[in-house]
Amino acid sequence: MTSPLSAAVRDEIERTRKIVADLHAELPRWELVVWTAGNVSQRVKVPGGDDLFVIKPSGVSYDDLSAETMVVCDLDGNLVEGAKAPSSDTAAHAYVYKHMPNVGGVVHTHSTFATAWAMNQEAIPCTLTMMADEFGGPIPIGPFALIGDDSIGRGIVDTLSGGRSRAVLMANHGPFTIGRDGKDAVKAAVMVEEVARAVHSARQMGTPVPIETHLIDSLWDRYQNVYGQGGSETAPLTLSI
Amino acid sequence: MTSPLSAAVRDEIERTRKIVADLHAELPRWELVVWTAGNVSQRVKVPGGDDLFVIKPSGVSYDDLSAETMVVCDLDGNLVEGAKAPSSDTAAHAYVYKHMPNVGGVVHTHSTFATAWAMNQEAIPCTLTMMADEFGGPIPIGPFALIGDDSIGRGIVDTLSGGRSRAVLMANHGPFTIGRDGKDAVKAAVMVEEVARAVHSARQMGTPVPIETHLIDSLWDRYQNVYGQGGSETAPLTLSI
Amino acid sequence: MTSPLSAAVRDEIERTRKIVADLHAELPRWELVVWTAGNVSQRVKVPGGDDLFVIKPSGVSYDDLSAETMVVCDLDGNLVEGAKAPSSDTAAHAYVYKHMPNVGGVVHTHSTFATAWAMNQEAIPCTLTMMADEFGGPIPIGPFALIGDDSIGRGIVDTLSGGRSRAVLMANHGPFTIGRDGKDAVKAAVMVEEVARAVHSARQMGTPVPIETHLIDSLWDRYQNVYGQGGSETAPLTLSI
Amino acid sequence: MTSPLSAAVRDEIERTRKIVADLHAELPRWELVVWTAGNVSQRVKVPGGDDLFVIKPSGVSYDDLSAETMVVCDLDGNLVEGAKAPSSDTAAHAYVYKHMPNVGGVVHTHSTFATAWAMNQEAIPCTLTMMADEFGGPIPIGPFALIGDDSIGRGIVDTLSGGRSRAVLMANHGPFTIGRDGKDAVKAAVMVEEVARAVHSARQMGTPVPIETHLIDSLWDRYQNVYGQGGSETAPLTLSI
Repeated sequence: MTSPLSAAVRDEIERTRKIVADLHAELPRWELVVWTAGNVSQRVKVPGGDDLFVIKPSGVSYDDLSAETMVVCDLDGNLVEGAKAPSSDTAAHAYVYKHMPNVGGVVHTHSTFATAWAMNQEAIPCTLTMMADEFGGPIPIGPFALIGDDSIGRGIVDTLSGGRSRAVLMANHGPFTIGRDGKDAVKAAVMVEEVARAVHSARQMGTPVPIETHLIDSLWDRYQNVYGQGGSETAPLTLSI
Repeated sequence: MTSPLSAAVRDEIERTRKIVADLHAELPRWELVVWTAGNVSQRVKVPGGDDLFVIKPSGVSYDDLSAETMVVCDLDGNLVEGAKAPSSDTAAHAYVYKHMPNVGGVVHTHSTFATAWAMNQEAIPCTLTMMADEFGGPIPIGPFALIGDDSIGRGIVDTLSGGRSRAVLMANHGPFTIGRDGKDAVKAAVMVEEVARAVHSARQMGTPVPIETHLIDSLWDRYQNVYGQGGSETAPLTLSI
Repeated sequence: MTSPLSAAVRDEIERTRKIVADLHAELPRWELVVWTAGNVSQRVKVPGGDDLFVIKPSGVSYDDLSAETMVVCDLDGNLVEGAKAPSSDTAAHAYVYKHMPNVGGVVHTHSTFATAWAMNQEAIPCTLTMMADEFGGPIPIGPFALIGDDSIGRGIVDTLSGGRSRAVLMANHGPFTIGRDGKDAVKAAVMVEEVARAVHSARQMGTPVPIETHLIDSLWDRYQNVYGQGGSETAPLTLSI
Repeated sequence: MTSPLSAAVRDEIERTRKIVADLHAELPRWELVVWTAGNVSQRVKVPGGDDLFVIKPSGVSYDDLSAETMVVCDLDGNLVEGAKAPSSDTAAHAYVYKHMPNVGGVVHTHSTFATAWAMNQEAIPCTLTMMADEFGGPIPIGPFALIGDDSIGRGIVDTLSGGRSRAVLMANHGPFTIGRDGKDAVKAAVMVEEVARAVHSARQMGTPVPIETHLIDSLWDRYQNVYGQGGSETAPLTLSI
């Protein structure tokens, strides 16, 4: 990060600060977080240089978040811009952006039911058409990883690369989701909690009936190509390293 | 839809756009939906022609819904009026309106507990007086059906025709409800989630005591004829093809 | 109700209409009701005559409730004053006021967890100090009763008379609560749902440890005599016919 | 409390009244309390004298709380200042402040899931990284204790002294939490309910995988020393008598 940022990149950073601040409001709205837990980030493309991303500062109340308080980091997780320390999960976000170039947004929460599956280290089976639509199959479990180095980020990338799911349940920790941009990753965070809760509820009464693989494939293909109002917002995210 | 619509029908469409937009606000209010999931529609009678219905556009946030953004479709599910693509569930709504002429409103959600029963493919037993009042018996399970043709609509119609229940739990998918109008179908969507949750909670602790059939009949008869403030709003919906 | 009401009683009716309308807002606030379900009433003393009570009209949205829309009934459940039909549960409220002269308020809801216990026809065991405080022991189950005559009211009175509990879980139906006044009965409705939910949650994981009877007695005695800011609001309700 | 309070202490009392009133709003916000249940207090240091604390009055609605209605007590639980009787849990708060000089805030709720574990008299196992971060291990169960003397306070102090957890689940009663100040204790109350709920949810489906002790130690050490924006707010609370 030695060269100065262009005016276009500076504009994009300011625009992204606003987007990321607004997306944080979705986390308490959908009851995915308590207190200061959870974080959203979004990539900023830097033409001819290394990308950056905007993320929430550490330990700050959801009431006090604004575009100004958001911080900017590089893909090694170093603080580039901002008055506050970045989220303690910044290294994980950075690792994902560095190793999954198609990913434009990352979200982490401790949403209750997704976290329940995570601590049982059990993948959520694909027993709902909305899961087939959104995730194309089960929601996988990632490894147990300590915070403080790149092991969380590596666990996310290793689990999601080459698959369809935009969500991983990190063992004994909670869900991380990825997306084309921050909003897409927030949507995945909302949906993973909803399916985690619904399948959990079904399991308490009996055994959810699995959906056959070829039907999951059919639902997934259709949803990625037809749903929504068209345009780039609905283009599928290709998960490859 | 070749002949122009009369002024009276045009007025009715505008009135219905407003009603349907307002009814959508009930879905997040009663926590039946997350993100852009769920949809409400209401029939527009076209004297001397084929009826129409007003429905939500596809993939639009609940914050951005208004009378203007609602779209109008014919009973084959074709878009007649509106700037956005109709809900991806439009074909199912259209099929219901076409084959159940007494139905004036249709609602679809993925509400959590109703969806839990749906993925276990187990009907909700009638163990509550409010279920007997509202649904006249158990809430039935519909078939597994892929989106994209008329199989969802056919599954709804086949399951509900001739019965009392205004709600069907489509297997591995979620609840669809019908009513005299959109509001009545929304009420059924609220009530099916409430009974799904209550009976689920009871099942976690033991075995809900069934209500005898003749008592269910008695409760159903009374509720359809006595409850509320009288007038057409409370007239029973006759479910026949 | 042949003699005209005195000015003092008329004032008391107006005051009570306002109180009862405001108390209804507590039911959705504490998530005890959906749609138009649930009702609160409060007695109006008529010196030298038969008491009256104020109650919610039937089938009206919680958004549309106001002091003006509340209706006044006599202790046989007949409408005395009001433009709308009284709640369909009016006969039960009337029966309670007629047969329990110390009761000044009655509430009925279908709150989810209390209703779950009701449909399992299982009393909530007293395993919480707050239950001992508020209810002095288990929350009892009342009989299965059809709506339409005095069997619900009789079931409430028979179950609660001579006991400590201000709440009864009517079988396959839901909770009714009583109190010194409407507010006290609403408090009981809030607390019965809370304990129903907490004990339900404990039962899902194991066996709640019972509190010994002499300790329940000690907690009950203290709470009825010490808690709160003193004054008539906190005087214990004596449950006798 | 015979000597008059200095102007500096008087200012600190007024400042603390405001803080404690505001912190009470967090309890309903995070759905930890119903009706008038729950209370927050914060210590006021009195240089050269015995400390005081500010606490909620007894049996007052959360809508009616303000800095002015808060009351001031000494470390024996006697009312020093205030128009209303102090919370019925004041003796427990006082005992904690008297015997744990590092504790600056105490919170008590009947939050549902923490209370469920409390009535099963089962400690919440440490199966989540966020539990290791916040509580450094399991959340312990305290003894059954009647209200009215110092047995609740003694139970809290005996259970928490020398440990890492800032939360104790008093048997058949509910959680008490402590902190550096009121806000820190409120955070612990929010987090204990969240982990109680998540681990409860996991238990309903299977067996949460324990985290090895050395990994818990590692997470705890890091969180106490690194997380947040630095400064005294994040200094660890040393739990010693």
